[in-house]
Amino acid sequence: MKVFVTGCAGFIGSNLVDRLIAEGFEVIGLDNLSTGQIKFLGKAFKSGRFQFFEGDLLDASFLKEKMAGCHLVFHLAANADVRFGTEHPGRDLEQNTIATFNVLESMRSNNIQKIVFSSTGSVYGDTSVIPTPETAPFPLQTSLYAASKLACEGMISAYCEGFGFQSWVFRFVSILGERYTHGHVFDFYKKLQKDPSRLHILGDGQQRKSYLYIQDCIDAVMVAIQNSNDKVNIYNLGVDGHCKVNDSVKWICEELNLSPKLEYGGGKRGWIGDNPFIHLDTKKIESLGWQPKHSIHEGIQKTVRFLRENEWVFGRRS
Amino acid sequence: MKVFVTGCAGFIGSNLVDRLIAEGFEVIGLDNLSTGQIKFLGKAFKSGRFQFFEGDLLDASFLKEKMAGCHLVFHLAANADVRFGTEHPGRDLEQNTIATFNVLESMRSNNIQKIVFSSTGSVYGDTSVIPTPETAPFPLQTSLYAASKLACEGMISAYCEGFGFQSWVFRFVSILGERYTHGHVFDFYKKLQKDPSRLHILGDGQQRKSYLYIQDCIDAVMVAIQNSNDKVNIYNLGVDGHCKVNDSVKWICEELNLSPKLEYGGGKRGWIGDNPFIHLDTKKIESLGWQPKHSIHEGIQKTVRFLRENEWVFGRRS
Repeated sequence: MKVFVTGCAGFIGSNLVDRLIAEGFEVIGLDNLSTGQIKFLGKAFKSGRFQFFEGDLLDASFLKEKMAGCHLVFHLAANADVRFGTEHPGRDLEQNTIATFNVLESMRSNNIQKIVFSSTGSVYGDTSVIPTPETAPFPLQTSLYAASKLACEGMISAYCEGFGFQSWVFRFVSILGERYTHGHVFDFYKKLQKDPSRLHILGDGQQRKSYLYIQDCIDAVMVAIQNSNDKVNIYNLGVDGHCKVNDSVKWICEELNLSPKLEYGGGKRGWIGDNPFIHLDTKKIESLGWQPKHSIHEGIQKTVRFLRENEWVFGRRS
Repeated sequence: MKVFVTGCAGFIGSNLVDRLIAEGFEVIGLDNLSTGQIKFLGKAFKSGRFQFFEGDLLDASFLKEKMAGCHLVFHLAANADVRFGTEHPGRDLEQNTIATFNVLESMRSNNIQKIVFSSTGSVYGDTSVIPTPETAPFPLQTSLYAASKLACEGMISAYCEGFGFQSWVFRFVSILGERYTHGHVFDFYKKLQKDPSRLHILGDGQQRKSYLYIQDCIDAVMVAIQNSNDKVNIYNLGVDGHCKVNDSVKWICEELNLSPKLEYGGGKRGWIGDNPFIHLDTKKIESLGWQPKHSIHEGIQKTVRFLRENEWVFGRRS
């Protein structure tokens, strides 16, 4: 079976491509390389079952052309810089909402009806129900990033109703592991590289977050698409637990054998729109037989090790 | 105080403009006249406190210029043809989602931070909780129209979090009354005009719907903005009850003194994405002291009378 992966050179995308190829799929991948890394696709290129196209989802005709002949679309490409939503408010609308519309229309014109979509646990906003199930009370959005992901979920669901599509939507916590190139571990590592004697932490360090290791994440995606068959299949993906930002800082410093002075920005939120407590209820995906094999602590260790062995990833970012 | 009204020549927009003027506001109105009627603004023009601009929300610089100096924005302009979402899937994205983004950005550049937004009860999709409260379980979208309104709600809420905006979001049932120019009463009236001996009804006629009379709707909007002061204020607007499509047909025929043969399209939904049962829980808006003064039956009677006295509204529509 031939599948299409948007954002194929990204952290999650490239790991998914490797898994899909290992499971026998033929993969067509598209990425605009704005944050994706061609190096992450080395293994895929060697497989002989992978074809890569550099291009942007806002180029609808290019997208339509390259998607032809595929049976299933994994749509992972997105602007994922949730923290900077207020500095360029149009970016999430363009790269997430409009880009997803283009993916859906491209599928429709190619008669492809199955889509897997990476949403976010941030769509639950500042929910009062924790751990948060997929059926939590209708939430208020607190970031343009999450608002755009919810807009995408809504369009996908409407295409399922109106055009006979079938979808698998994953609301992720933050993902950790090999090929990780942005997020708090990345930022802390980079700051410590520059000055190992001190570390500035956004917020008060008490923000409680949940993280999932990349291979556990990919396992969950594969389990869900193989074992659920509703018109719209929505799953939270995370570990059944959380850590504080301070725990994470401790584990990163231990792994790097550093003892920096910790400085706090203060406030409950790390940034505008940050959710100070994310802990998703993952009973639904667990009911399909999936369990994460790695703790948050192990996920952070593996991420730090990856960064230590691949410091080139810092090279191309400001 | 000077306020800005998008979609000011529409059914709800023009009634709102009249009320705002009656309450002493100075009103700047914008409408692209795609479905709005300049005739609906006759009273407003005579007031001397109304200024009209013909223009489209997709023209961001025009919007920004005209909005200057206002203190509050009522954003009512939208593509409201929910039934035809699948025939031109980009229309809701453009006219609702992208247009609302332009409104928000225009407000931001004009330093206006208060917005009133007309959303829809359709954002609850096929919810199992009826009557449906604002805090219903996270719903699945069933139409591109509702998905786009939810996308707008999300952006508005994120602007409240990220840019200090304050918002009042109204999830309407269908509205009835004077200046009504599209919807089921309009369609039935038009069909009966053409052939009074028969009436074709979409679905099985058992769809249960809730309707609200326009002046009750405007009352509710004014009560809510004067009496609620959260960052994001979301209210369902409807009557505490519902009727069947068949009831509505009976009332329309009674009012017109006709006894057509009824023919049913069949099926539970009137159209793809139609919600067969809409009945919103309105306790939240009622807690502010609001109550509708008209029943669904009265709303339908008033609508039929308006159409009978203003058959010109059928003239410009296909």
